Amino acid sequence: MDDVWREGDRGALKRRGAPPVFVTVVPGPQRVGNEGVVDVSAEIGRPPGGAVQWLGESYRLLRPSLADLLASVRRGPQIVTAKDAAYLGYLAGVAPGARVAEAGSGSGALTIALAYAVGAAGHVTSYDRRPEFLDAARRNVERAGLADRVTFRERDVAREGLDVRELASVVLDLPEPWEVLESARSALAPGGSVATYTPTYNQLERTVRALRAAGFDEVRALELIERPIHVGDGGTRPEFEMLGHTGFLAAGRRVD
Amino acid sequence: MDDVWREGDRGALKRRGAPPVFVTVVPGPQRVGNEGVVDVSAEIGRPPGGAVQWLGESYRLLRPSLADLLASVRRGPQIVTAKDAAYLGYLAGVAPGARVAEAGSGSGALTIALAYAVGAAGHVTSYDRRPEFLDAARRNVERAGLADRVTFRERDVAREGLDVRELASVVLDLPEPWEVLESARSALAPGGSVATYTPTYNQLERTVRALRAAGFDEVRALELIERPIHVGDGGTRPEFEMLGHTGFLAAGRRVD
Amino acid sequence: MDDVWREGDRGALKRRGAPPVFVTVVPGPQRVGNEGVVDVSAEIGRPPGGAVQWLGESYRLLRPSLADLLASVRRGPQIVTAKDAAYLGYLAGVAPGARVAEAGSGSGALTIALAYAVGAAGHVTSYDRRPEFLDAARRNVERAGLADRVTFRERDVAREGLDVRELASVVLDLPEPWEVLESARSALAPGGSVATYTPTYNQLERTVRALRAAGFDEVRALELIERPIHVGDGGTRPEFEMLGHTGFLAAGRRVD
Amino acid sequence: MDDVWREGDRGALKRRGAPPVFVTVVPGPQRVGNEGVVDVSAEIGRPPGGAVQWLGESYRLLRPSLADLLASVRRGPQIVTAKDAAYLGYLAGVAPGARVAEAGSGSGALTIALAYAVGAAGHVTSYDRRPEFLDAARRNVERAGLADRVTFRERDVAREGLDVRELASVVLDLPEPWEVLESARSALAPGGSVATYTPTYNQLERTVRALRAAGFDEVRALELIERPIHVGDGGTRPEFEMLGHTGFLAAGRRVD
Repeated sequence: MDDVWREGDRGALKRRGAPPVFVTVVPGPQRVGNEGVVDVSAEIGRPPGGAVQWLGESYRLLRPSLADLLASVRRGPQIVTAKDAAYLGYLAGVAPGARVAEAGSGSGALTIALAYAVGAAGHVTSYDRRPEFLDAARRNVERAGLADRVTFRERDVAREGLDVRELASVVLDLPEPWEVLESARSALAPGGSVATYTPTYNQLERTVRALRAAGFDEVRALELIERPIHVGDGGTRPEFEMLGHTGFLAAGRRVD
Repeated sequence: MDDVWREGDRGALKRRGAPPVFVTVVPGPQRVGNEGVVDVSAEIGRPPGGAVQWLGESYRLLRPSLADLLASVRRGPQIVTAKDAAYLGYLAGVAPGARVAEAGSGSGALTIALAYAVGAAGHVTSYDRRPEFLDAARRNVERAGLADRVTFRERDVAREGLDVRELASVVLDLPEPWEVLESARSALAPGGSVATYTPTYNQLERTVRALRAAGFDEVRALELIERPIHVGDGGTRPEFEMLGHTGFLAAGRRVD
Repeated sequence: MDDVWREGDRGALKRRGAPPVFVTVVPGPQRVGNEGVVDVSAEIGRPPGGAVQWLGESYRLLRPSLADLLASVRRGPQIVTAKDAAYLGYLAGVAPGARVAEAGSGSGALTIALAYAVGAAGHVTSYDRRPEFLDAARRNVERAGLADRVTFRERDVAREGLDVRELASVVLDLPEPWEVLESARSALAPGGSVATYTPTYNQLERTVRALRAAGFDEVRALELIERPIHVGDGGTRPEFEMLGHTGFLAAGRRVD
Repeated sequence: MDDVWREGDRGALKRRGAPPVFVTVVPGPQRVGNEGVVDVSAEIGRPPGGAVQWLGESYRLLRPSLADLLASVRRGPQIVTAKDAAYLGYLAGVAPGARVAEAGSGSGALTIALAYAVGAAGHVTSYDRRPEFLDAARRNVERAGLADRVTFRERDVAREGLDVRELASVVLDLPEPWEVLESARSALAPGGSVATYTPTYNQLERTVRALRAAGFDEVRALELIERPIHVGDGGTRPEFEMLGHTGFLAAGRRVD
């Protein structure tokens, strides 16, 4: 098995019941947050999963899962939930090796999910017209160790359009996706798909009408409700606490 | 861009408003279902998306999306929905390049989703103890053009365990997942995850208790409800028709 | 106990596993649908629940439940579900003895639910501007044995307003409830409430804005999703079949 | 219109945007909570809805709605939601004038909903084996002004059964409803129904099996999900905050 740690990789220090702590695989001791110093040098060249001592406890040095990465995003604006990120990827036809675009970058959470799904052979172009969001997203993507899969561009795609072509997928997570649909369609390769994510019915409705007007095929609209289940001593039931709403998803495919 | 058709690739002939029709990219004319003959020879060496004439109409020859592939599965047993397949992949930590295992093979729909997500650099080992299901799943995976990413094994994993190791992910879609959890845990690399899919709360409850008993970390249980939305002339509302239930998902991670 | 059958009462002939069959309590034999003749004369003056022979089987002659009555409605337009009828009554503040109004009459299903809830001491005024709906609703209400609790009026309440006053409750089940809200407010006694039922979010949005503009207090908007549960030999789970959407409910109270 | 305030009636002082404040209609000034003194003497003999001055503001003296009454319950144990109370009443066949029984009394919230629905001509017998709950429920029912419609009984119905007969409805809101179903069946008049309310799947499953075993007809199981909708300046969407679960409902009817 040839998956081994290389210098510069991002790893997650993990022990049971605790959230992951992110480190970069470098020689020598490094400071981790405010919580002291760790040395993962010995893992370089070894496969993920090795034991590392830190603060008197034994941790595993793991390749971060997408769940780890999403949990690590420093939240500015509200970030996409995992269920929606996963399904947006499906609806947009995201696959390993694919070239995809995203607008806007937001906090970078969806960017991370897309970069994770396209793998090392794929690429994500992420647009935002607001420099401060681009910066935050870029930092979050770097922290996730996925910077080499993502190109950030400061650009108002509603007015200027996308400047990449022959894409497999476009994902739109911005307030007025309908303004970008014509441009997204031109940027897609034949058979490619666009998926959108918006909080209100009003936005969804306008998006779906614009998808139809722009000639997209296989137009769909839906929402995904995640219901956590509690398994306790007294039995099993849906959890009392639940997120009542995240966003509506819409999608269409370029077939012409 | 170097994504070009090679002999033996599976392609989807697609025109607006019609379901995709699957062909293999081969020289010379080929019969497609009962609906006549098509010749895609000219596309060999060219990028996907080219126009192909068939039955007097113009089609695009596309790389199939996961949605295309799932729609093409010949259904024996009830097949996993896309939302659940996507989220099972997320919960199990499936990523491009990953080595994952699945039991049982069922109709091969979930196998296809996993093989799609791990990409050409990953691999899926799919177990079933029933030869007839293995055959059906294998045929469906072949039809999807993903046979080289999947190894099928006839094996009763509840009794004999998994015979692969250092996996990133194990996905269990069988009636008694709790019987496989100890074995799944041994098969996982540190940091790897198992995800299960079962229709009843009784199965979910027993699975969650077994996940805890087997020492899995980050144990979760949930269901995902997909609500299609209708955007019509009279306005927008949830669809009247909706699938009331698919299955419950549970997951846990090996951290020790 | 003084609840006894009187001539003219509507009763439901019921046996296990069969839907109820409606009869009127009259002396002598009567024809029931196309299914033969029954004689319930002997029950007059006796309490509900007595055994009646019909078509060689033993039935109970019961006071119809609201579920029986709703199931008996001859459906023209789509009828309100029981969950929504019950909650509309709650939101509108319907109570035994209350004077309530409803527009439009529709098929009479909601009329029946309201007439049932206000009891013998209450009264429902039901408006519709379409004579054919009024006729159908009236027939359904008569068949339910509730005609003496309901006054039907042919009237376009959007243009002419309601012509009753000091109501406890107004329930609006028509396409443009916002056109009736000012009038409904005038028709309500202080503390009385209006509740509306509309299929699309567009109608809901406009209704809620109109409720606020008309000065209603305690304005609410919601939907009620009924999830049937299957308890079978193999365990318990939500039913696969489920109604994905019925309607959105909104409500407000007159407090000034 | 003859609905006028009589001495001893419970009224709700209400102004826009504020929760109702409960008073008893008595001659002379009375203390209300810790918030000063009000005098509603002048309303005696007048219809509800009159203006009353209190703390320098104008209030309406209203007959409390069921929503007002439920909001006033001093919560010990978790109380039933309005949607469930309304639908339990429907499933159990509660109607104005009906004689119904309930076990356990809990906080009295469901008792209040049932007493409200049966009206002045109906009656509720409410059982609990725990004196402290009976006391709390009784106080809440008194505060709601519905004490004359309710008889409280300290009794372990699981062991001793119900001691009323010929009931229209029995509602069970206790942890082990299956232990009471045989007894509930005997207490029901022919055509009467029992409805149960339990938080877990396990309890629901056992209840449904017991309903069938006890020979009930029209056995149903379901849950009701209330999704509040937000109508704001930015558009309309489901609320982010939502109660993920309340309880499962089951019901059956005595037909024999």
